[in-house]
Amino acid sequence: MRAAVFNEPRSITIAERPDPVIKEPTDAIVRVVLSCVCGSDLWYYRGDSPFAPGPIGHEFIGVVEDVGSEVHAIAKGDFVISPFAFSDGTCPHCRHGITSACSAGGFYPSNGDGGQGEGVRVPLADGTLVPVPGSGHSDETMASLLRLSDVLATGHHAAVCAGVKPGSVVAVVGDGAVGLSGVLAAARLGADRVIALSRNPVRQKLAREFGATEIVEERGEAATETVKELTDGVGVDAVLECVGTGQSMETAISIARPGSTVGYVGVPHGVELPIGYMFLRNVGVRGGSAPVRAYIPELLPDVLEERINPGRVFDFVTDLDDVAQAYEAMDERRAIKSLLRVGAL
Amino acid sequence: MRAAVFNEPRSITIAERPDPVIKEPTDAIVRVVLSCVCGSDLWYYRGDSPFAPGPIGHEFIGVVEDVGSEVHAIAKGDFVISPFAFSDGTCPHCRHGITSACSAGGFYPSNGDGGQGEGVRVPLADGTLVPVPGSGHSDETMASLLRLSDVLATGHHAAVCAGVKPGSVVAVVGDGAVGLSGVLAAARLGADRVIALSRNPVRQKLAREFGATEIVEERGEAATETVKELTDGVGVDAVLECVGTGQSMETAISIARPGSTVGYVGVPHGVELPIGYMFLRNVGVRGGSAPVRAYIPELLPDVLEERINPGRVFDFVTDLDDVAQAYEAMDERRAIKSLLRVGAL
Repeated sequence: MRAAVFNEPRSITIAERPDPVIKEPTDAIVRVVLSCVCGSDLWYYRGDSPFAPGPIGHEFIGVVEDVGSEVHAIAKGDFVISPFAFSDGTCPHCRHGITSACSAGGFYPSNGDGGQGEGVRVPLADGTLVPVPGSGHSDETMASLLRLSDVLATGHHAAVCAGVKPGSVVAVVGDGAVGLSGVLAAARLGADRVIALSRNPVRQKLAREFGATEIVEERGEAATETVKELTDGVGVDAVLECVGTGQSMETAISIARPGSTVGYVGVPHGVELPIGYMFLRNVGVRGGSAPVRAYIPELLPDVLEERINPGRVFDFVTDLDDVAQAYEAMDERRAIKSLLRVGAL
Repeated sequence: MRAAVFNEPRSITIAERPDPVIKEPTDAIVRVVLSCVCGSDLWYYRGDSPFAPGPIGHEFIGVVEDVGSEVHAIAKGDFVISPFAFSDGTCPHCRHGITSACSAGGFYPSNGDGGQGEGVRVPLADGTLVPVPGSGHSDETMASLLRLSDVLATGHHAAVCAGVKPGSVVAVVGDGAVGLSGVLAAARLGADRVIALSRNPVRQKLAREFGATEIVEERGEAATETVKELTDGVGVDAVLECVGTGQSMETAISIARPGSTVGYVGVPHGVELPIGYMFLRNVGVRGGSAPVRAYIPELLPDVLEERINPGRVFDFVTDLDDVAQAYEAMDERRAIKSLLRVGAL
């Protein structure tokens, strides 16, 4: 099969790789229909985090081609969503809702295949994959279904960790695909006001479509001042930190009102938490790798019934063969998120 | 009046100081009946944190002697509890339940008087003081009422921040007065199991009285291993960090199960939060200076009706004149917490 491989920073190419085969009786083989590039892939692409040469990508939807002898909940021909982590669904962490910490699980491509390729061996298929009901989904719905495999659920995790409730005043730091998902998730959970920090007109527009009620263009201390002004000096009830840098976390903590929590989902890079300041102001931080699998059942109906349209973040669409361009567009911030057409449904 | 004053590290003496007088129309003057020494006072006593020479102490109960013209909820003769912070009760932070972040408030002795003295000028008396109903309280109840001014509510804050719920499996790091209060608070909130980390037989006994179901004597990595064993490798549902050192926070985070929160109330000294590890395991941290005033109405009935007896942590009792001995006993860990008898009710 053909699949994207990471060679070294700034070098992603298409290579011929072995077709995935069932290795464990709990495996399924999925033929990928749509995949995409994640903001976290850019950390490797830019050389900011180490990554072993080989397959890459972890977000995909596709059709089940084969299942192992111990797979019962998933069948050949099912159209499925895969979360970016695989999990058994039965361990104490999965039953507690933190599927991303599954005792038996792991993350693509530790299974041998990345999501940016024609096929994937999916371990622990019963616990991992979610079949999508219905057929004849529109291109827009297909794109939104793909977003359930990672960043939509990641934005939702930020909102859940931050304790967003009906009536909350929320701020979202970060206007990438995760930040925009956070805006959507906060609005979906009933936030009264959603303040999006963004200086990019295209992203501002999408943030408003997703439910942002106010936009703050400043950064750093100026952003803190503006958010404080917008909240009568109080700060917001919940902050979603969707970047993962030291500056974004500092801003997030500084605009959180005493007693509130910063829900953070950006993989931390160079973040030092100011515990003295957090203690003084009673501001908590809570987050991590989103338990996507646990959230899909709650979010899927809203996507299928088009109450939310998270697929709108895809503003660069290409075929798998042009994966390098998909990375470049995101790296140069020409694209919020790049969609890869891999195969037919 | 006579009051304890901090001269320099390891020197606390009794001095003659001006009687407190009404300075603002929102002030009350309280004649102190009982006071005590806080674990946080020891940071100054030991020279680990700076402290300006002068009055010290911030926990007291007493009788109102005078009130300013704008005080309406408190009257002369009331027997009252003062939280360690004063707060107006009307600002957005107070209304949000975080009275320790009151916009107009502050901490003793920034008002000019410490709690370890015969009298205190209490700013913002209507928002700060809580009258105690009834009369003829036993010595034991009086001691427990004093605990409402700080560490009982602080242990409760740790439990609230950690999200302790009925049925939770909880671990408490720290066996000082705050940690023991955390044990009591977790049990009171319905925890199914409370694992207390303590190597001191006297404190272990009190922890069991307060509701601990298991005791772990190890420290550091050995403690983590033991707690993991006690929880089938999973970790606990909620951790109360009641010390504030780097090692205690490290232990707390390492025994928290994925998806849980460490509620921390020990003033952080040398704590660096391992955000990468926290992200990987979805462990949050949340806490700070307890909003004592907001919690007293919930806790007071349980003290008055003797459903909880937090005053049992006082294992050293002396008169105000012997305040130096009260500090020494705690510094040398001969006492969990020292009670100071100051005046008659």
